[in-house]
Amino acid sequence: MMGKKGALKAASLGERGIIDMIRSELDSRGAAQPDPPLPHPDDASAMRLPDGRFLVIKTDMFVRRTDAPRGMRHQSMGWKAITMNVSDLAAKGAMPAAAMVAMGIPRGYGADALRLFFRGLSEAARHYGFPILGGDVGEARDLSASVFLAGYANKLVRRSGARPGDILAVTGEFGSTGAAYKLLLEGKAAPPHLKRALHRSVFSPRARLAEGVALADSGLASSSMDSSDGLAFTLHSLARSSSCGFEITALPVSAPALEFARIHGISAEGLALHGGEEYELAVTIPPDRWGSAVEAVAGAGGRLIRIGVATEGSGVRMVSGGVREIPEDGWEHLRQEGHASCAR
Amino acid sequence: MMGKKGALKAASLGERGIIDMIRSELDSRGAAQPDPPLPHPDDASAMRLPDGRFLVIKTDMFVRRTDAPRGMRHQSMGWKAITMNVSDLAAKGAMPAAAMVAMGIPRGYGADALRLFFRGLSEAARHYGFPILGGDVGEARDLSASVFLAGYANKLVRRSGARPGDILAVTGEFGSTGAAYKLLLEGKAAPPHLKRALHRSVFSPRARLAEGVALADSGLASSSMDSSDGLAFTLHSLARSSSCGFEITALPVSAPALEFARIHGISAEGLALHGGEEYELAVTIPPDRWGSAVEAVAGAGGRLIRIGVATEGSGVRMVSGGVREIPEDGWEHLRQEGHASCAR
Repeated sequence: MMGKKGALKAASLGERGIIDMIRSELDSRGAAQPDPPLPHPDDASAMRLPDGRFLVIKTDMFVRRTDAPRGMRHQSMGWKAITMNVSDLAAKGAMPAAAMVAMGIPRGYGADALRLFFRGLSEAARHYGFPILGGDVGEARDLSASVFLAGYANKLVRRSGARPGDILAVTGEFGSTGAAYKLLLEGKAAPPHLKRALHRSVFSPRARLAEGVALADSGLASSSMDSSDGLAFTLHSLARSSSCGFEITALPVSAPALEFARIHGISAEGLALHGGEEYELAVTIPPDRWGSAVEAVAGAGGRLIRIGVATEGSGVRMVSGGVREIPEDGWEHLRQEGHASCAR
Repeated sequence: MMGKKGALKAASLGERGIIDMIRSELDSRGAAQPDPPLPHPDDASAMRLPDGRFLVIKTDMFVRRTDAPRGMRHQSMGWKAITMNVSDLAAKGAMPAAAMVAMGIPRGYGADALRLFFRGLSEAARHYGFPILGGDVGEARDLSASVFLAGYANKLVRRSGARPGDILAVTGEFGSTGAAYKLLLEGKAAPPHLKRALHRSVFSPRARLAEGVALADSGLASSSMDSSDGLAFTLHSLARSSSCGFEITALPVSAPALEFARIHGISAEGLALHGGEEYELAVTIPPDRWGSAVEAVAGAGGRLIRIGVATEGSGVRMVSGGVREIPEDGWEHLRQEGHASCAR
């Protein structure tokens, strides 16, 4: 079947086509969860427990060839493999309880490099406060780590709850990773202090765990999503899941991204919207709860930055300095016409 | 580091060396679970929950290149990827609650083949009675599926509880997969009826889930382990974890394995001991509980076959027709001097 000329290939389906295929097989064979608390698509999967809480689980696969930009050290790769998964639980309001790691390792891979990868995994798990209980090791041609993270949530925040009039907010500034990828992948220049700041954004990302759990537990957010696929893509996804649109009034661009954009004469807004691999949360808050939400997130050590408002209709528009549609410009694994590796 | 001449490579460490390295990093960075209910090595990992039960989790990675023998169809591969993980939870007495699947897929992989793989995953999950909640898809050079299975146990059965005098038992007969691998990998012949039976053992394995949970819940077993690494290897591991030895008085060899051994003039005992990929349970039962254990497993639709006894000391000996040491003859991923793929 696989060798047949002209037969449909994985690359033509793309990641989402493949996921749709899995879902249709699960549904038709009775292996899907009826009435899931976090229906597809959402950041993680959940199951209601007898005590009223939710078991929330997530797996995100780190593949060195596509997820580690040039220059990333093994310790950072391990750290990132964990952070990717924590960020998704954070967006749903779940506190991680335990992780497992399934590693694919090439036979000739250096033992010292592996040790540093494991060190990055360990330090990240420790940082976010959960144990790695175990895992599996198999032989593979690419270094990969599938992290499985299980946690518990008292309340869940879906992608689908935003209503017209809700305030759209994020937990941090954007653009540094977009600039860092131009530095790392396109060889663009930057002075040493800027280089350091940009590298840090890519090599030591932090998930907004305390913020996400505080928001969910307070019951103040109407929707929430992790922004790691890029801010523009994230806002489009959130809008689609909630059947609303978004108007953006202000984009919080990081100081390093602004400086980099000025040096190279490129759009800072573009860096902020289409960088990706930034582990902030994008959330919506009903206007009457805004003050309490700001307080709840501040109480968790973070901040909530208002960037716009949910509207009737669909799509994402910038409404400061004239109205412009913001394109989705997503990034998808396996797509034949996809972007360069890591440049998401 | 990785390219350095003479530097230590993954293949020199082997799967167990790599796992030791991960464990030392987890321990030294404070990311290991203190006082785990299922200490390493065991079939799965566990965590005590506030209500007294245990969260039991397992991940086992199916890699087509090493886990699918020639002739295995994609639907069987999906089925096997699930069964591998269910068997480990079964051995600990945990009922699976939910699974996630992280797939590594080559760009050129056939869509029809993928669909059949997903069908196999779905049918197995349905068979064992749990939903697949979600997963992840990434690009990889080998087809692989890391299944992450989470379940709950009222009581756990460790590998380490066997005491001298306990009865050693298994949940089924052995040898069919060992014969099937000789058929599939060495091209040995067999009449059609035998071929069918042997193929079935490799392509449609069943995990002993009801049996394992019944044994654990009854509190009758002193130790338990899944036999998928081969019976001899399993018994050696169980003996080591329990600091005891085993004397084998009778090996339950399957009828197809006996027939195949007779045709080819090879040892049926060898097939039973060193086949592997057989998802039976090996357990020990204190003698005064034997009758109740047999009943408990029968009540779950299975059977318990007495094969020997736990002794003082160490090692595994065959004691029918003279005393012979049974070699461990393990199989380990990634080892340079390892066996041929799939021939475990």
